[in-house]
Amino acid sequence: MNRDYLDKEALQGALNDAVIKALLNQEGALANYIPELERVDPNKTSIAIKFPSGDILMAGDAKDHYFTLQSVAKMIVLAGLLEEEGAEKVISWTGMEPTGRAFASISQLEKFGPVPANPFVNSGAIALCNRIPGSQVEDKLQWLTHWTEKLFGAPLPVNQEVFESEYRTGDRNRAIAYLLKSNGVLRGDVDETLRVYFTLCSYQANVMDAAHLPMLLANGGRDVEGRQILNSSTCKYIIAVMATCGLYDSSGSHLVHTGMPAKSGVSGLVVAVALGHAGVATSSPRLDSKGTSIRGEIMLKSLSKALNWHFAS
Amino acid sequence: MNRDYLDKEALQGALNDAVIKALLNQEGALANYIPELERVDPNKTSIAIKFPSGDILMAGDAKDHYFTLQSVAKMIVLAGLLEEEGAEKVISWTGMEPTGRAFASISQLEKFGPVPANPFVNSGAIALCNRIPGSQVEDKLQWLTHWTEKLFGAPLPVNQEVFESEYRTGDRNRAIAYLLKSNGVLRGDVDETLRVYFTLCSYQANVMDAAHLPMLLANGGRDVEGRQILNSSTCKYIIAVMATCGLYDSSGSHLVHTGMPAKSGVSGLVVAVALGHAGVATSSPRLDSKGTSIRGEIMLKSLSKALNWHFAS
Amino acid sequence: MNRDYLDKEALQGALNDAVIKALLNQEGALANYIPELERVDPNKTSIAIKFPSGDILMAGDAKDHYFTLQSVAKMIVLAGLLEEEGAEKVISWTGMEPTGRAFASISQLEKFGPVPANPFVNSGAIALCNRIPGSQVEDKLQWLTHWTEKLFGAPLPVNQEVFESEYRTGDRNRAIAYLLKSNGVLRGDVDETLRVYFTLCSYQANVMDAAHLPMLLANGGRDVEGRQILNSSTCKYIIAVMATCGLYDSSGSHLVHTGMPAKSGVSGLVVAVALGHAGVATSSPRLDSKGTSIRGEIMLKSLSKALNWHFAS
Amino acid sequence: MNRDYLDKEALQGALNDAVIKALLNQEGALANYIPELERVDPNKTSIAIKFPSGDILMAGDAKDHYFTLQSVAKMIVLAGLLEEEGAEKVISWTGMEPTGRAFASISQLEKFGPVPANPFVNSGAIALCNRIPGSQVEDKLQWLTHWTEKLFGAPLPVNQEVFESEYRTGDRNRAIAYLLKSNGVLRGDVDETLRVYFTLCSYQANVMDAAHLPMLLANGGRDVEGRQILNSSTCKYIIAVMATCGLYDSSGSHLVHTGMPAKSGVSGLVVAVALGHAGVATSSPRLDSKGTSIRGEIMLKSLSKALNWHFAS
Repeated sequence: MNRDYLDKEALQGALNDAVIKALLNQEGALANYIPELERVDPNKTSIAIKFPSGDILMAGDAKDHYFTLQSVAKMIVLAGLLEEEGAEKVISWTGMEPTGRAFASISQLEKFGPVPANPFVNSGAIALCNRIPGSQVEDKLQWLTHWTEKLFGAPLPVNQEVFESEYRTGDRNRAIAYLLKSNGVLRGDVDETLRVYFTLCSYQANVMDAAHLPMLLANGGRDVEGRQILNSSTCKYIIAVMATCGLYDSSGSHLVHTGMPAKSGVSGLVVAVALGHAGVATSSPRLDSKGTSIRGEIMLKSLSKALNWHFAS
Repeated sequence: MNRDYLDKEALQGALNDAVIKALLNQEGALANYIPELERVDPNKTSIAIKFPSGDILMAGDAKDHYFTLQSVAKMIVLAGLLEEEGAEKVISWTGMEPTGRAFASISQLEKFGPVPANPFVNSGAIALCNRIPGSQVEDKLQWLTHWTEKLFGAPLPVNQEVFESEYRTGDRNRAIAYLLKSNGVLRGDVDETLRVYFTLCSYQANVMDAAHLPMLLANGGRDVEGRQILNSSTCKYIIAVMATCGLYDSSGSHLVHTGMPAKSGVSGLVVAVALGHAGVATSSPRLDSKGTSIRGEIMLKSLSKALNWHFAS
Repeated sequence: MNRDYLDKEALQGALNDAVIKALLNQEGALANYIPELERVDPNKTSIAIKFPSGDILMAGDAKDHYFTLQSVAKMIVLAGLLEEEGAEKVISWTGMEPTGRAFASISQLEKFGPVPANPFVNSGAIALCNRIPGSQVEDKLQWLTHWTEKLFGAPLPVNQEVFESEYRTGDRNRAIAYLLKSNGVLRGDVDETLRVYFTLCSYQANVMDAAHLPMLLANGGRDVEGRQILNSSTCKYIIAVMATCGLYDSSGSHLVHTGMPAKSGVSGLVVAVALGHAGVATSSPRLDSKGTSIRGEIMLKSLSKALNWHFAS
Repeated sequence: MNRDYLDKEALQGALNDAVIKALLNQEGALANYIPELERVDPNKTSIAIKFPSGDILMAGDAKDHYFTLQSVAKMIVLAGLLEEEGAEKVISWTGMEPTGRAFASISQLEKFGPVPANPFVNSGAIALCNRIPGSQVEDKLQWLTHWTEKLFGAPLPVNQEVFESEYRTGDRNRAIAYLLKSNGVLRGDVDETLRVYFTLCSYQANVMDAAHLPMLLANGGRDVEGRQILNSSTCKYIIAVMATCGLYDSSGSHLVHTGMPAKSGVSGLVVAVALGHAGVATSSPRLDSKGTSIRGEIMLKSLSKALNWHFAS
């Protein structure tokens, strides 16, 4: 799978260049709709690349910069359900079309509904959280723990402050969930589903942790020891949805400019799949108006250009 | 670039299987908004694959089934302007985001405007036709002729009946063009720009002709003799936009299911890029409600599965 | 205020004619989103006119046909708050523009928001219920009891089965309420506000009861004994909002055809103000696609024509 | 019809007060999408009231302040067609529902279409201009001349500069017209229909001229000599549509605050019907963000309050 010879020095140079370009940019603002997300240091900036060989390269504040996964974690529930329930069922629970709208858009549910447009808008991820097997919240959280460990190669802690902050202020997501319930898409208790969803968003990692899942995807679902963690069909599905829907209404320009299917989160994390090469994770909390990390995109563009990691090259 | 050994018999078998699956489906209806498009034989079904080596494989009515390119031709003006004017200018004329809406949507222009969302919705292609160099319609048509020949390896004829049919009934596109003019996006004479646009849609080909351009894209811009017809950066741009916007509001599910970035036209043509492998063209005029050839999608899914040509595999 | 001589026989004839025309129509369907509303007899049809003199005329099942007020009750909270808090505050809590959309539209909140478009869409009425004075649900229900008795001249019972049915199935309204909370429009506990709102919808009456409030409005706020129950300015405000927003996206055609500002409910009740004449209430549960009673509109048109009660005549 | 004793001094005082309040406001901007409309004196401010008795009162620059009717002229074609073709046909050509959107909205045509929402949005008026009897533009203009004279009591000149300015820059209206043609609503030549429409908008008057038509409407269709110029049913139709749609997405608040059904134009003219009393015309060219004259609304609110001319009082 790995089509190119890895010259570590050249790679490290590309990473360093990417971080330097990013640090020169001071634009953007912290996400402000979850109080806890506003407390982070706005200057933290880090990048890591993980190769199927197990090699990891990094630059910036990679080791000591922790953040919550936020929407990047939507990949966990999607992957787990694709593996356990199959694509056909997942498609019946949420579509796979870009919306041309923001991540928490409610209008799109009235327009496209009853089923959410794709698994990466909030409504889609909430609908999937509702389908996690288990009769109680604890069972579903256990399922999440299991899959998170599988997909990131190690357990990730839940940031309880962020969870409480999201739970306390998550009225827009409550509105989405009740609308899904009203549409007949969401079954059972709304509050329980939201507790699962808010927990999902609150997993905590640094970029070295975060680069594991995109590495798996870049490597056909196999981990560094060659074990098949995800089926090839699951990888194709997820990567394709990342390509078209991963950055909401910036997905198109992201794909043109970087060629690396990616998923962003409002904490400033972006994970990206360098197809045939490696998994990439960047993190920096200042966001543009569409909720994407500005420095993250700068790093990914720089890297894609330097290493010619565009999927269409 | 060509990563796999070409076993022609296996390939031909995959093509034949694809056509057989397609022929079993009788769903869909001919495009009816251009009278001339309704006159075609609804059962025509053909597929061709063109390899960077120059090898062409085909199945179905590949040789004698001619059709107009329709929206597939939007790739011509995009490619020509990217080459001659550069990406920065093209981006200032039309965005690159999927819309979540139909190809001739006007609401999206009010929502996303003033600049069209991407080069593959009608408004985007009309905006680009307006930027073709030349002071008169004849100059612009000459530019089109030049680029069409370059991109398809041979001159393509214009179907004058289809052109006249489109010109006579193209009031929705006139509405779009006047709205672009009103937004300050379109310069000069609306009717002249539309004559260019309707000509563009009326180029005629069979699947063997049509497979040339996606082969160029799959081959980093080089033709069968290794000449660089398109820059690598142009190829990346076009393929990325095909991936996210090529089939309008079916782009997401197409990419998940086939993994081949594609562009569809209402004549029933779909051209698809099997990255690292070949260019593919399928044609069959019965369309689903979103304007995509039903048999075309069946053939592409079948082929992708049989040959493992998904971009994320 | 009463500009015309009341010929009771002629009036009774007009009422009878109206009911007969209505009974000939079998179109429409019962509201089905609240289970309890589907249990009513679809053929019940009644009309009543109440004059400032205290005279009441009626036809059809006027006496024994009871129904819940549903959205007609939105007038109660609007009237009470206008009287107690004043127009300026009410306007800051909800606008007064027609939406061109359905009564439970959520998209309109994203488009027009954060404040609801008008007090007669669900979001507007929920926002107003949130502003009823009182620290606990009981206080607010007492406020409602007080105003209901004032506006209908007698206490109205709450239909507990309908309340429970609405409460159990009201997820769309929960979605609206959480969105309002997320927008900063709704304060305090969502469930408490919804309990008030669902109670409001569940007041029960027959057409003779229901005609009292529009009679007050037609009479400048004075009751049959000449007491000023509502200020003139409150009446003007409510009647104007009824004229433009009373029947959601049928408000325009209703006003053209009947000339009587009105408010409809999904139980099939419509109350209408015959300006300078009388209050009218019609009830029949079969609804058109926009949620208005079909027979109700037939009766109101017939009456308006027979008596020349169009506001612009 | 005239319910109140006319104390001319008190009335003149109310007019003067209204103008003084208006002159204190300096907000708003001239319409800028038609170049000719930007050339007017932004401070011109005038008001006139015309009574069924023939009495006219005025204040401000009433005599020497001329302006084009703009959208107020949409009432002419509506009135003429209602009289000559009947309500049923007019309703089949354009609806009568408020849109919740701006006057030149195109999205609403995609949402509500194919038929325009009401006769006072541009699409509705263009659709009606298309139905004016006559085989050639000249015939239709003659029809307009005839009806304009009838409705304003005297011929009005066409401002040729404004017509040319609108014709030259009217691309948004061209877009609307071609969309109507594409929807099958508009027949024949688009440019010819637009020439009629732009002429309609370019009739010129002062407030004394302009107050004639609302006086007719306030007087049941009769002129100052008691001749029946418009049928009562036509008056009811027009007044009801003015009430719900006359000021686009400000119609609701206008009706609440003034109680006088009205029609606005981007030249700054507003004509209003004081039901049972008189016709009112105000003019001042500074507009708010929704295209309504700011000083005009100040004058109408002041007048309504001073004279208690609210339709619901």
